[in-house]
Amino acid sequence: MRYALTVTYDGTQFGGWQIQKNARTVQEELEKAARTVFGCAVKMTGSGRTDAGVHAEGQVCHFDVETEIPAPKIAACLNLHLPDDVRVTASAQAEGFDATKGKQKTYRYTFYYATCELPLLSRYAVRVRRFPDVTAMREAARLYEGRHDYKAFCAAGSSAKTSERTVLNVNVVNTAYPDRIQFDLFVTGEGFLYNMVRIMAGELYEIGCGKPSGIEEAFATGRRDLLGKTMPSKGLTLVNVKYERSPFDMGSEGV
Amino acid sequence: MRYALTVTYDGTQFGGWQIQKNARTVQEELEKAARTVFGCAVKMTGSGRTDAGVHAEGQVCHFDVETEIPAPKIAACLNLHLPDDVRVTASAQAEGFDATKGKQKTYRYTFYYATCELPLLSRYAVRVRRFPDVTAMREAARLYEGRHDYKAFCAAGSSAKTSERTVLNVNVVNTAYPDRIQFDLFVTGEGFLYNMVRIMAGELYEIGCGKPSGIEEAFATGRRDLLGKTMPSKGLTLVNVKYERSPFDMGSEGV
Repeated sequence: MRYALTVTYDGTQFGGWQIQKNARTVQEELEKAARTVFGCAVKMTGSGRTDAGVHAEGQVCHFDVETEIPAPKIAACLNLHLPDDVRVTASAQAEGFDATKGKQKTYRYTFYYATCELPLLSRYAVRVRRFPDVTAMREAARLYEGRHDYKAFCAAGSSAKTSERTVLNVNVVNTAYPDRIQFDLFVTGEGFLYNMVRIMAGELYEIGCGKPSGIEEAFATGRRDLLGKTMPSKGLTLVNVKYERSPFDMGSEGV
Repeated sequence: MRYALTVTYDGTQFGGWQIQKNARTVQEELEKAARTVFGCAVKMTGSGRTDAGVHAEGQVCHFDVETEIPAPKIAACLNLHLPDDVRVTASAQAEGFDATKGKQKTYRYTFYYATCELPLLSRYAVRVRRFPDVTAMREAARLYEGRHDYKAFCAAGSSAKTSERTVLNVNVVNTAYPDRIQFDLFVTGEGFLYNMVRIMAGELYEIGCGKPSGIEEAFATGRRDLLGKTMPSKGLTLVNVKYERSPFDMGSEGV
């Protein structure tokens, strides 16, 4: 039988989602917990990788196993054997479901402006040293929307076949607090290249600081050097993954 | 010369504010940094203690030192020598100022309701297993306001002379997210007993779950057993401390 899970994790102590040598990974922790719960080896297939240090609120994966455990109870069974920084928030039976076939993913990149690092924020957000022009950031963000060649927004070493990607929506939400101003960049797309959201975030921030936009020329030329820095991984969170038919749409998802 | 600081810290790895044997404390880290910056021993006097595991956005302290460093630059100098989980957000000259004479303090207690622990929240918030009635919590919260004998809301071992305290304002703010409902309890008072906010939070939550309020009888009798459990320290954050005359009111406080 095939099952699907939604998974949340604090990426700080992980070398990313995908199993690899010499790094602790989320996939590995889930497979270890599944081996304990089901008594056999289980391979977890995620919607896609997340990089080292990236967090997730709603990663999705699937696996195949024969078990008597009712599907909605599998989440709680796995949670009993997972470390504190990973939790399965929902489990469902999912015949025919393939976690890799997500239609869209939403990421959030969080940065804040303050006079110094703020320890209560700095685990999940990145401090910037200049106060950006949010209107300029919002205007530039619209350039990302649509289908473009995102080759320039991709870290070296990517194995993707094509660098064309469709970005459906980009939004910058800013909130003023007594101690800082926080900027959340939300990016929804059909798929992303390696480091793409972190480079999109870095370019937007530099545009907010007065740099002329390199976005359109980077689309045309593929030149990485036209764009701002790649932002650190700890500010990035995979918010959710949507599917044409979600196994969680039938009320089994919990809160 | 006397100086004042505002300080933020992630309490997770601290045995609280006040220096003690066998525990890492915020005061100790600040005094170590100050010794490096000023080249002499400096005693930091906080607005009050915070317990082991409690966080702070705006703790305030004062100290005396002779230095050529301009007062607003002291924050950045100390930050260079502080560990990642403590930061000084502002420094100011403060003749005649006494950090222990705060007129009011505001604490926030954060809990959330979700089907499992959420790693991205659980460092600074406490998960509850039942969905409380927020209206009932808000109504009961008003009972706290005013001057009352909070003896029943105090952990054993407190050395306070009187257990009467004035609570100025209590508010319950709840926010629904896709994965949880979060409840922030804000409590502002002139002063608090040991564990008082954590016991106030525990009683309010149990009232939200249907327990009859024990608040009025606990005021009258001092009986701890009439009240709910003491909530864990990690959900508690000292938001700010206010003074009749704040050394930070003259625009030196930063963002």
